[in-house]
Amino acid sequence: MSQLPLSDYEKHRAAFMANMPNNSIALFAAASELTRSNDTEFPFCQNKNFFYLTGFNEPDALLVLLKNEQGQNKSVLFSLPKDALHEIWQGRRIGQIKAVQEYGVDESFEVADVETLLSDYLDGKSQVLFGFSDHDFAAQVFTWLKQVKSNIRQGAKTPQHLADADPIVAELRLIKTENELALMRQANHISGLAHQRAMQKCQVGKFEYQMEAEILHEFARHGARHPAYASIVAGGDNANILHYTDNSDVLKNNELLLIDAGAELSGYAADITRTFPVNGQFTTEQKAIYQLVLDAKNLAINAIKPGMSFAKLNILTNAFLTQGLVDLGIIEGDLTELISDKKVKEYFIHGLGHWLGLDVHDVGDYHINTDREQLRAFEVGMVMTIEPGIYIPLSDHSVDEKWRGIGVRIEDNIAVTATGFENLTANSPQTIEDIEALMKA
Amino acid sequence: MSQLPLSDYEKHRAAFMANMPNNSIALFAAASELTRSNDTEFPFCQNKNFFYLTGFNEPDALLVLLKNEQGQNKSVLFSLPKDALHEIWQGRRIGQIKAVQEYGVDESFEVADVETLLSDYLDGKSQVLFGFSDHDFAAQVFTWLKQVKSNIRQGAKTPQHLADADPIVAELRLIKTENELALMRQANHISGLAHQRAMQKCQVGKFEYQMEAEILHEFARHGARHPAYASIVAGGDNANILHYTDNSDVLKNNELLLIDAGAELSGYAADITRTFPVNGQFTTEQKAIYQLVLDAKNLAINAIKPGMSFAKLNILTNAFLTQGLVDLGIIEGDLTELISDKKVKEYFIHGLGHWLGLDVHDVGDYHINTDREQLRAFEVGMVMTIEPGIYIPLSDHSVDEKWRGIGVRIEDNIAVTATGFENLTANSPQTIEDIEALMKA
Amino acid sequence: MSQLPLSDYEKHRAAFMANMPNNSIALFAAASELTRSNDTEFPFCQNKNFFYLTGFNEPDALLVLLKNEQGQNKSVLFSLPKDALHEIWQGRRIGQIKAVQEYGVDESFEVADVETLLSDYLDGKSQVLFGFSDHDFAAQVFTWLKQVKSNIRQGAKTPQHLADADPIVAELRLIKTENELALMRQANHISGLAHQRAMQKCQVGKFEYQMEAEILHEFARHGARHPAYASIVAGGDNANILHYTDNSDVLKNNELLLIDAGAELSGYAADITRTFPVNGQFTTEQKAIYQLVLDAKNLAINAIKPGMSFAKLNILTNAFLTQGLVDLGIIEGDLTELISDKKVKEYFIHGLGHWLGLDVHDVGDYHINTDREQLRAFEVGMVMTIEPGIYIPLSDHSVDEKWRGIGVRIEDNIAVTATGFENLTANSPQTIEDIEALMKA
Amino acid sequence: MSQLPLSDYEKHRAAFMANMPNNSIALFAAASELTRSNDTEFPFCQNKNFFYLTGFNEPDALLVLLKNEQGQNKSVLFSLPKDALHEIWQGRRIGQIKAVQEYGVDESFEVADVETLLSDYLDGKSQVLFGFSDHDFAAQVFTWLKQVKSNIRQGAKTPQHLADADPIVAELRLIKTENELALMRQANHISGLAHQRAMQKCQVGKFEYQMEAEILHEFARHGARHPAYASIVAGGDNANILHYTDNSDVLKNNELLLIDAGAELSGYAADITRTFPVNGQFTTEQKAIYQLVLDAKNLAINAIKPGMSFAKLNILTNAFLTQGLVDLGIIEGDLTELISDKKVKEYFIHGLGHWLGLDVHDVGDYHINTDREQLRAFEVGMVMTIEPGIYIPLSDHSVDEKWRGIGVRIEDNIAVTATGFENLTANSPQTIEDIEALMKA
Ligand SMILES: [Mn+2]
Ligand SMILES: [Mn+2]
Ligand SMILES: [Mn+2]
Ligand SMILES: [Mn+2]
Repeated sequence: MSQLPLSDYEKHRAAFMANMPNNSIALFAAASELTRSNDTEFPFCQNKNFFYLTGFNEPDALLVLLKNEQGQNKSVLFSLPKDALHEIWQGRRIGQIKAVQEYGVDESFEVADVETLLSDYLDGKSQVLFGFSDHDFAAQVFTWLKQVKSNIRQGAKTPQHLADADPIVAELRLIKTENELALMRQANHISGLAHQRAMQKCQVGKFEYQMEAEILHEFARHGARHPAYASIVAGGDNANILHYTDNSDVLKNNELLLIDAGAELSGYAADITRTFPVNGQFTTEQKAIYQLVLDAKNLAINAIKPGMSFAKLNILTNAFLTQGLVDLGIIEGDLTELISDKKVKEYFIHGLGHWLGLDVHDVGDYHINTDREQLRAFEVGMVMTIEPGIYIPLSDHSVDEKWRGIGVRIEDNIAVTATGFENLTANSPQTIEDIEALMKA
Repeated sequence: MSQLPLSDYEKHRAAFMANMPNNSIALFAAASELTRSNDTEFPFCQNKNFFYLTGFNEPDALLVLLKNEQGQNKSVLFSLPKDALHEIWQGRRIGQIKAVQEYGVDESFEVADVETLLSDYLDGKSQVLFGFSDHDFAAQVFTWLKQVKSNIRQGAKTPQHLADADPIVAELRLIKTENELALMRQANHISGLAHQRAMQKCQVGKFEYQMEAEILHEFARHGARHPAYASIVAGGDNANILHYTDNSDVLKNNELLLIDAGAELSGYAADITRTFPVNGQFTTEQKAIYQLVLDAKNLAINAIKPGMSFAKLNILTNAFLTQGLVDLGIIEGDLTELISDKKVKEYFIHGLGHWLGLDVHDVGDYHINTDREQLRAFEVGMVMTIEPGIYIPLSDHSVDEKWRGIGVRIEDNIAVTATGFENLTANSPQTIEDIEALMKA
Repeated sequence: MSQLPLSDYEKHRAAFMANMPNNSIALFAAASELTRSNDTEFPFCQNKNFFYLTGFNEPDALLVLLKNEQGQNKSVLFSLPKDALHEIWQGRRIGQIKAVQEYGVDESFEVADVETLLSDYLDGKSQVLFGFSDHDFAAQVFTWLKQVKSNIRQGAKTPQHLADADPIVAELRLIKTENELALMRQANHISGLAHQRAMQKCQVGKFEYQMEAEILHEFARHGARHPAYASIVAGGDNANILHYTDNSDVLKNNELLLIDAGAELSGYAADITRTFPVNGQFTTEQKAIYQLVLDAKNLAINAIKPGMSFAKLNILTNAFLTQGLVDLGIIEGDLTELISDKKVKEYFIHGLGHWLGLDVHDVGDYHINTDREQLRAFEVGMVMTIEPGIYIPLSDHSVDEKWRGIGVRIEDNIAVTATGFENLTANSPQTIEDIEALMKA
Repeated sequence: MSQLPLSDYEKHRAAFMANMPNNSIALFAAASELTRSNDTEFPFCQNKNFFYLTGFNEPDALLVLLKNEQGQNKSVLFSLPKDALHEIWQGRRIGQIKAVQEYGVDESFEVADVETLLSDYLDGKSQVLFGFSDHDFAAQVFTWLKQVKSNIRQGAKTPQHLADADPIVAELRLIKTENELALMRQANHISGLAHQRAMQKCQVGKFEYQMEAEILHEFARHGARHPAYASIVAGGDNANILHYTDNSDVLKNNELLLIDAGAELSGYAADITRTFPVNGQFTTEQKAIYQLVLDAKNLAINAIKPGMSFAKLNILTNAFLTQGLVDLGIIEGDLTELISDKKVKEYFIHGLGHWLGLDVHDVGDYHINTDREQLRAFEVGMVMTIEPGIYIPLSDHSVDEKWRGIGVRIEDNIAVTATGFENLTANSPQTIEDIEALMKA
């Protein structure tokens, strides 16, 4: 399976440590296994920040990054011990020796040693960095601080500053390296193959979950054992439920099928949406809406370059879609007013896109200072989705009957480059002609 | 998708309520969604006891069963409300009206009403039944009891007895109805198709995870969207790691492939293991071990009937396998002594089988009183796995080199019938001839 | 200091164990020290149920009562170990040897042994009794149950029934033994001396807290180091704040002083209220109200005997006080209607009395079944307060000005005897003449 | 009762806010009532940091200090609302209007408003200061941060830095103002009167708790309703248990009585120890030990001035006491060696002193950097105890019998002044002559 070279994670750690003040310590906890039912567990999913900084895929580990008063760094990984009996029953573990040799940390100990070593690490440090969003871990940090404080009359010095490591890691994760982009290209490639296969396998009378099965099989046989998020396979009016994941209905003639599905490859997400006719032929109205959304998507993508922002793309896309809906007679009124009233948001009810990376809705700030408009300028190495849509539920009686039940979204994954953009979603048909041709074949 | 008629869940509730004393109340909480990473969630898995009593597949619901002083029953379901905006974003909900109409509860309220209604239900009851294994819910119950107690000087009567509902539901779940058996037959049928497909698709040079992909695709296209447990796809020596789920290695010539995988269908698990040669031809040693395990499995299964027990099956199977290993020259010594020393457990390192149902390791007591020997007699309607195995790791230098790296397990799912047993695992090849024939085709 | 013979606590345990079903276990936790500020603690107060069953006055202990399948009892006390260094710093401990020799438990272990021994005790028991009102301890019980459950496939049997020990102990505590009555007589005697001293020391210009100081000093020098509850020393209109405990105002001429204060002696509470003129002479209006309350109190007390109830005493007292307020012109209207409207409760705003014992508001049910009227019949050995009061705040402009600012409560402690009652509050002046005489002296 | 002018607390807040960076927020929680048993509570003790910054003595309040980006300060107090019914039952509350008018905060709201207002306060702040030692409050802070974070895609900015407010307040509290010194002088004066009274009331045959009663009565009648810590009243060998607070034994002829007791006045502690003969006459050995401890105490006190440190005082006092014990023949050996071996610490087993203020063991660092020797130089306004002692338990058979059972500690409270020191403990006899004279009178 494709994956980042382990040395890349060392670089991630180095980049994080460059953000640490002297005489500080950073703590990152791995995820734990989560019970599904009784004694079975969900497939393990590593904590994404921990993974970004280690590439280490076992539960219950702890990464400690230390920067001393002279600015020298040290990384320590606490992980589950090698244990013959456990490994016969539960599988192999990496252990402490390989952690140093292969994962490049400076030192490695068994997790049981955390209790004895951590108060030493903390004593005298001026700042502790950890992710504030994990409240159980925060409580753990306060317990460790208390251990240090209990020695205060003997001269122990409890750290007095805590800093949220989450936004620091988020800024790093937001800008992808060339190796990360290569992985994301590959995740997109696999996901594109899956969308093609869905188009080819689609038939009236099949069930949504069967199309999902085709998608997931294509992911898995290319090494992407899990989707990056719950796949949406929504026939007909189901497309108008944004996060429809029941995938339980039968596919009907003359309806569209919206599939929003992306592979997770070595932790990195793809997030692709395609909409196509169940029977292989768009109706006139489906064509009209589809073409409008497709043009909007391409308009937005083609505008992407360093310095662009979601705020500006929103203005562009919303104006274009408004014009389009007016032209189709779906909405009426003065164009300028409709635009300033954001009338189109009644049909395009979600955001235009989002950061993409180790998470499908990836970390990273969208804002500058306290603006509410996503004014942040794009930079080289950012990856985002562009995913306009138009949704006209069956229940929307304000629109001519012929449009009702149509829900269209088209979503590509875009990397910002020095000269503009790279569309990572290269192998997934999207023009009406290409889709109809593929489905006819 | 196959599923139990909703009226069956009413019968389950009635059976549970028959176990409730007069003037008591039982509480069953649904599962909650669990975060996978950031804002994505694992596929929802309902709490199995809640599901057994409701067939209701939404998170965050609460089932309340009430029996009054005259022994009359009432069922109340608290569930998430219908909410137009939420349903556009997150999907459809069943709501309170359908809960009564379709799921057959006597009354249904929004979950927000629990706080006001539950102290009324509790006031004056003599016993509260709930599952003791869910500690968060137990804490919730104590909070509700406190609310009642706060009115004690005004005459409120706090329930003074709590009973563990888990073992009561376990006993019910242990004996399957004909409808449940039909579902489990179907889950086995699907799983058998998947094992057949794996044999057909197997090739030297493919990866374990690709075989897993074939399995899961076969499950899913028949409506079993999730496996009942993490699939084990273990080539060569990996088979000697019992719960090997990395499934990341390449399949090699002259090695065996052990696959332990079963579908979950409408909540019910199959649990099937097959072992076969990667290249389609068993070697002499593989054949010898395989035949021994297969004969042991069949010996055990054929002995199953009402009144039999795991304890007796263990004696039978262990003796047979000991004799077999002696005959093969893998172990040496006096047969009687080897048997009484349980020498075979060095190679057959796990249990012979387990209950099977809504959980793969299903609930239900194995014991009578406080015995340690699984003496409980089988009864009609019980379903169990029978899964002997022999494991000789590459690292086991006490055994002749030719045997090393062989790990074999064969596992069928058996229902106890009035006259003996029914093997639910009917369509999955297991004789050496059948396997080699299928793989050659 | 007066205290119960330690053998009495053995009798309490025996009485409790007579309520335990065969094959059950009961758990009672001692209190822990509570921090007041930084490293100082509040004076230790033992958990009252634990104390009732042990007489053991150290923190962090655990009493385990065991009844086997044949109905044989065993008591086990887990307590802090003897520890030379600790005792130099923190004080003496009783330790395990004295626990058996002096406190009469069958076995005693160090608290650290709870973890290893308790799952053995629990395994196979059918019922666990503990106090449901302590939620932290309940969580602990569930943790212990989980430890047992983790061995379930090896034949461990987790208890399936939990029973609330609180109401069982409450019923025992409600009926006082002769030794307990002797202690409560003594607690009342000391408290009566304190109320006498307050009357003698009272002067215009002194502060409420100084009267409290006299009270507490009198308690303490007789061995009652702590009051049973926060003393109320309320001059003038402060008496109309029921739980006024600021005790910070100066005592003024022509005002009344209400003191509600009782000693705690070896754990048992007295609860006495006296009201008297700051300057030693009642005014006409003060006299009128005072005499009415005094007569009501005596009326109620004289009616006490086995079979009487708070419900009946309420009817009696409320009628009498209503008539009295009508006679004084404070309320007007048809007497029968005023009584049925409970008009008097605007001036007599609290309950007539409450159980008294180890707690000032002692445990024990007031009700029969689910009545809301305190219909429970008095029995020999019950102890209660009788404490009518009339409160007319300065701010109550519905009443003639001359009555405003008067708040009177008179409270005695009464034991029910075979022939009627014993007033435990024997030495504290209450007639207008006696009070004025004492204060003149 | 003596107390600080409320305007002093405004100064304390201003001093704290001078330590806050721009664009920060500080949070200080009041204490809550603590249950003693059933429905009774311990006397309320305010959180000392909260009290230092507000002078506000009600439970469940929250102080919020805000500094904006321009460095402007604002203080907000959330407190319990005025509530007529509650005040009739539970006592008066200050309410929001008086909080502003009398306590000088800029704004005041009901505690129920915290939930709505606090996320606004937090949004956009760069630092949150609060006391790290209160883990429940820390968990609350993280919950509030999460509320802010939930709006992150709308542009909310979660604070990314948390700072421990405890050491900042500690440094402020360490240096007492003239008003604080005046209060502490008064607390010492009251405590000194109490120690005098104890000497006067002492008699063979009285009980330790009766001497405690005299002490506490003297505190209380001067307005100090609570001692600053649990009083130690230790006759004879009990003095060799450092924190002996049972106070339950009878006072015997020819034994010493050690009393360590100090009043708390408006939150400020005194901490005084005196040791004297039960019968009013020191024996020869008692005199010898007593004089040695008294001389050591005075030696240490006389050395106090700005620049001195506990480390230096320790050297001085230990040397002096070593010499003294050698002179008395209690220890033997080469003086220099005995000193460097710290032999005296076998008899003088605790520290020489500690900071004193709102807590008896007051906050404030004793160290410079990470030294372990209490090298911090004294500064004007610091207050500390000086409390040497010599303890020879009855069980110490290494010492001549005549010395056994003697335990002596003498403790004064000292403020550092520009020119040296002020002994706040001015009115409590300590020379042998003065004590014997007072007790004879
Ligand atoms: Mn997307
Ligand atoms: Mn199995
Ligand atoms: Mn009372
Ligand atoms: Mn001290």
